[in-house]
Parts: sequence; C-alpha cells; structure tokens
Amino acid sequence: MENFEFFTPTRMIFGKNTHQQVGKIVKEYGFKKVLVHFGGASARKSGLLDAVTGALEAEGIQYVTLGGVQANPTLAKAKEGIELCLREGVDLVLAVGGGSVIDSAKCIADGAGNPDADVWTYFRQEAVPARALPVGVILTLSASGSEMSASCVITNEENGFKRGFNSVTHRPLFSICNPELTCTVSKYQTACGTVDIMMHTLERYFSRTRDTELTDRIAEALLKSTVEAGRIADKEPDNYEARAALMWGGSLSHNGLTGAGRDFFMQVHQLEHELSGMYPSIAHGAGLAALWPSWARFVCPGDVNRFARYAVRVWNIDMDFDCPMNTALAGIRATEDFYKSLGMPSSLKELGVEEERLEEMAEKCTNMGKRTLPGIRELGKEEMMEIYRMAMGE
Amino acid sequence: MENFEFFTPTRMIFGKNTHQQVGKIVKEYGFKKVLVHFGGASARKSGLLDAVTGALEAEGIQYVTLGGVQANPTLAKAKEGIELCLREGVDLVLAVGGGSVIDSAKCIADGAGNPDADVWTYFRQEAVPARALPVGVILTLSASGSEMSASCVITNEENGFKRGFNSVTHRPLFSICNPELTCTVSKYQTACGTVDIMMHTLERYFSRTRDTELTDRIAEALLKSTVEAGRIADKEPDNYEARAALMWGGSLSHNGLTGAGRDFFMQVHQLEHELSGMYPSIAHGAGLAALWPSWARFVCPGDVNRFARYAVRVWNIDMDFDCPMNTALAGIRATEDFYKSLGMPSSLKELGVEEERLEEMAEKCTNMGKRTLPGIRELGKEEMMEIYRMAMGE
Repeated sequence: MENFEFFTPTRMIFGKNTHQQVGKIVKEYGFKKVLVHFGGASARKSGLLDAVTGALEAEGIQYVTLGGVQANPTLAKAKEGIELCLREGVDLVLAVGGGSVIDSAKCIADGAGNPDADVWTYFRQEAVPARALPVGVILTLSASGSEMSASCVITNEENGFKRGFNSVTHRPLFSICNPELTCTVSKYQTACGTVDIMMHTLERYFSRTRDTELTDRIAEALLKSTVEAGRIADKEPDNYEARAALMWGGSLSHNGLTGAGRDFFMQVHQLEHELSGMYPSIAHGAGLAALWPSWARFVCPGDVNRFARYAVRVWNIDMDFDCPMNTALAGIRATEDFYKSLGMPSSLKELGVEEERLEEMAEKCTNMGKRTLPGIRELGKEEMMEIYRMAMGE
Repeated sequence: MENFEFFTPTRMIFGKNTHQQVGKIVKEYGFKKVLVHFGGASARKSGLLDAVTGALEAEGIQYVTLGGVQANPTLAKAKEGIELCLREGVDLVLAVGGGSVIDSAKCIADGAGNPDADVWTYFRQEAVPARALPVGVILTLSASGSEMSASCVITNEENGFKRGFNSVTHRPLFSICNPELTCTVSKYQTACGTVDIMMHTLERYFSRTRDTELTDRIAEALLKSTVEAGRIADKEPDNYEARAALMWGGSLSHNGLTGAGRDFFMQVHQLEHELSGMYPSIAHGAGLAALWPSWARFVCPGDVNRFARYAVRVWNIDMDFDCPMNTALAGIRATEDFYKSLGMPSSLKELGVEEERLEEMAEKCTNMGKRTLPGIRELGKEEMMEIYRMAMGE
C-alpha cells in the first residue's frame, strides 16, 4: 500500500426530497447571494429550477441564474459565469445539474476567487488557484462523481483541448443528492452514467500497486452494486433503490475511496478526453464504453492475474486455473457485453470517429509529444494509436 | 435505503513516517499552542512523544503536555485537560494515542470551547456543544475509529456511568495514521482492536433497513479484509500491510460509510459500555467479543436471512438452502471461533463478571428504566439480562 491522503470534506445530504432543504442549508452557512448554475431546458421543464429558486427566496437569499451549460462544458461559458459572479458579488456557486454543470461551477469558483488570473492557466497546469468561491451542488445525474471529487474538466472551445486538474478548492462544500431527481434521466444517459461510475473505479483498480486488499474489495463491492443497479435502472427507470445505488456509488467511485493506497493514472479517461474534445457530441460515458475493452485487451498481458481476479470477483466467472488469461478475457468480454446491453457503443466507428483523425487524437493525448501515460503498460503515441485503432472495430 | 447525511471532513494523512510531518501540518493551519495529550509510558518509551514534540519545536510551535489517559478515559482527566487548555491558551488539542486518548481529547475540546458549561451535561444529552477547539490525532492503535468518527465515550468515575454522544465537533481536523506505530501493540490489544473494528461494522450491518446493497457489500468487504488482516497481524506483528489494513479499516468502519442509508442502533456497544463501566479493567474489545455471539444468537431468529448472508459473504460458508438457520448459526460460530483464535474471551465469566451484578448492569443499560434499545429485536431489561446470562457461559 502506498502512502495517501484522503480528504472528502463535502457534506453529503442524501435521499428523498432533500433538494427542498437547499434554502435552509444555504442560509445556515450564512451566504447572501447565490449563482444558480444549470444546464438546459430540462431543469426548467421539470420544475426543479423553480423549486430551487423558490427555496432560496423562502429564506430571503438573493440569487442570479446562469443556464446553458452543455455536455463537455466550455471555457467560454465558465468565463461568462466568472464575470457574472464578480459583477453581482456572488458568494456561493450552486450547481444544479450533473458533472458538466458542476465542473463549470468549479471553474467559475476558481476564476471568481482569483479575478486577476487567467483561469485556463490552471488547466494548463501552469498555476494553482490559491482560493475559490465555495461550490454547492444539487445533483441531477449519477455519473461524474464531481459532487464529491477534487476534479474538474473543461473544454477550451478555441483549440478543442479538453483538460482537467485536481484541487482541494474543487471539493464542494455540500452536495444535495436526491435519487428521485434522476428517475427522468433517459436510458442512454443513465447508461453513460453507469459506465462513468464503473470507470472511475476501474481506472483505480487496474493499476500497479500491490497489497491494497481493503481498497480492492471495496472497489469490487462498488462495481458489483453498480452493475446490478445499472441493469435495474435500465429496465425500471423509476426504481428508487437502483437510482440511489447509482447515485451513492457515483459519489464514492471518484472521491478517493476506491483508490486509497493505490498509485494510479486514469489512462482511459485521458484517451477519452481527446475523443470527446475533438468530437464534442460524443458523451463521455459512451466514449469510455467504446474505448475500455480495447484498452483492457491491450494492457491485460501486463497483469493477467488482476484481470482474472476482476472477472471472478465482479462477474462471478469461474477461474480457469490452468489458463488465467481465459478468465481475464472473459471478464473483459462480460464488461463489453454489459455495456452493449445498456445500448452503449462498442466501437469508435459507431460513434462516427474517422480513422484519419486517430493520429491527431493520439498526438494531442501526448500533449504534443510532451508526455507518456504511466500504468500497467506505459502508453506513448504508438500505443495510444494501437488502442484507438483496436477500438474502431470492424 | 433511508435518507442520510455523510460528513467526514477529517483530513486523513496515511502511511509510513507520516507522524514526522506533524509540525509542518500544525503550522500550515496556523495554530500557536498545542496540548499534546497522551496515555501511558509507552508513548514516552517508544520515543514517539519526543518525535512529536521535536517536530513541533522544529516549527516553532509552543505546546504543553498532559499524559496519563487510561483505557475507559475518565471525566476527571478530561477536566484536568480543560483547565490546562484554558489556563495556557491552547488552540489545538493533539491526541497522540488510540481511542481512549482521542476521546479524552474530544471531551477536552468540547469543554475548553465552552468554558461556562459543565461538559458532562453533553454526555447526559442535556445540552449540545455549540463549538469546540479543533482536535488533531496521531494514531497509535487501530480500533475505535475515533480518529475519523463523530463519537466520544467518557466514563464518569464518580458514578461508574460510561456515556457517549456524537457531535460534528468531534470529527478531528486531521488524523495522521502511520501503521508502523502499531507494530509494537501487543497481541491482546491488537485482537481487541480487530474485534472493535469488526463490531463497528457489524452493529450497522445487523439492523433492520432493507435495500442498502452497496453499503452492505462495502461492509462485507471491510469485514473480510479485517478478518484476514487480524489473522496475519496476530501471527506477524510487524507485517506492515496487515497493520495498514487494520488501521484504514478501523477508520472506515466508524466514519459512517458502512452504515450509509441504514437505520441502526449499536446495541452490543450499549451492553458493553455498562460492562466496562462497572468493570473498568475490561478492555472494550474483549467485552464486545464476549457479548456479541450471545447477542447474535438471541436476535438471529428475527432476521435469519441476514445472518445467513453474513455467513456466506464474510465467512465463505456454504448456504444451507433448506435450513438457512444452520448457515446463520455457523456464521456466528465462525465469528466466535475467530475471536477465540485471537485469544479473546468467549464468556463474561472469563472476564471475572459476577452473576449477581448482571441485573444492575441491565438496569443501568436501560438508563434506570428510561429506555429500550431498538434493533432486529428490541431490548428491554429482561432481554438484556437474558443476553448477559447467555454470555456468562458455562
């Protein structure tokens, strides 16, 4: 086990009707003016936005609103939010939405907390935000784990780069998680979320550290629960318990718990960031689903036993003691089949990716030749292209 | 799944040599004067106390020391600490020790933060501390989980009452957890700790809420890891990975994770508090080990399926589909055998408890007739006496 720090200061308020408490909670902290940040029309249509602003009004809390955040949230939208916060004297950024809205809110909070800095320098890893406005969350999508994580990913629409960085300023102050709010999420988006939740744990699980039995068992627990809940939510969108398991699993999957003591690097996320950076219409979860099986088959020879363990523990596949590779591959296949059963793509071709752009994608993923990605197998440009090519499918 | 709040703001700094960072960490927060609170001679003898005070001195941080905390920490010692803090203008209480020292530090922090209040009124549930001094921890024993929990248990030496209460003020600001510091813990104390860690999860696991599959699987992961690590640490006291699994498991077992969404009440802890309240020489873990199997056999008919699941999932016992009770009882027996294999007592008689004091014990556990304990089976005085009697053994 490697040394680690585990710091999850976010106050999680989880369960039915909890979003109605938002006014009281904001008041309890003493905030005066809130930026209510949200995505598209669904927050309005569902009545959630009215419920939130109504709850704030009921406690006499001022607010301004900024909607229009899209999947793969942009730097331009965040800059709009930063200006609004500074102009209006906002002291809390309240994200009402999923990962895109939350990440946009975190970027706004970083920018508004450091008005003299260019916020993109943080994403270029050239500077670190010294402070930030606090962020609160009302979660409407189980996927990114951003409601409890230190991460934040933004796309610079000017150059197509999608970049993230971790910061203690990114841990929300509080997150209100009502699984009922996700019952109207479409089958496709629910599936994307299920993939994303699993991937946050899988990326930690498949790394090189040994002797992290407790962390590994917790990871397996979370994966099994997510597979089960993902299957149920796909068939019964209104099943509260399945929605709750996805929501809580999403938060735990990316808050550090499933990687405690493990030295890891999220290779598939990096590969996917370039994908949806260049093809912004690709949903993050769909991109991950299309990439992971090829990534797994590519790196599997580097740690057959671990992939075999995954197959046995998560998918209840019988161990082939004479040829663990058979078990390992069966586990990858089971994952792929599960993703397909949820309607997820199994190839990049399905997603409309063009063969001739793979090299550019790999080049960007190396930061123009400036990095390789560590892991079970280290990935340079050649290896990345091989994985992208495998993922293109027939 | 029930609605819940999950709030674990403690910054966990985990791993080898981490205690050497204490001076830097305290300075980073800007504290000026620390109460270094500890137990007996072992902290001095091992050189840990010198290392801690040396690290503080190196950063120019002032400190006063107060040692002498014993198992089942007393109100008298805490009051001594409160006076010292107020007299010296202490702004951080640093516990160097295990659960007893940490709980004593929490009580001191409550008292010093509210100089006009009688701190025992909090333990009598008559008042709530409005504020408290911050608490930092250097952990030397894997057991109580107090390094990350909201709980605090103190014995009033004047009347023998052992009482605890939960408060957000009890979550330490930071906890430095170096598993190496526990390699010198005796076999007996290691075993007591292993029992305590398991019990914090078992008490949540065996409650009435349904549909908490993720929480349950995490609980099972933690229990399996703890059994495994407890076995290894018993045979190889210097095994770092086993010590690390016990330490991290101890923190996760009592921070809320293994009970998220479950409505629970820690019956066995309540039964044990009276036991070690009346017999202060009984170690908490040993008392729990002697009580749990009898408690389990007593309540098992109320939820056979859950006890059967426990047997299958945690102890790898084959399910008896025709008679799940057989499986359930085999799981209880496996737990009992495991505790015995670690040298834990299997009866109250072994611990020197006198039959004629059981009624007084049960009476105290009902708060003199003022409460029953909810759970799979509700426990009133008669039921408590039955469990105590069963636990006396032959």
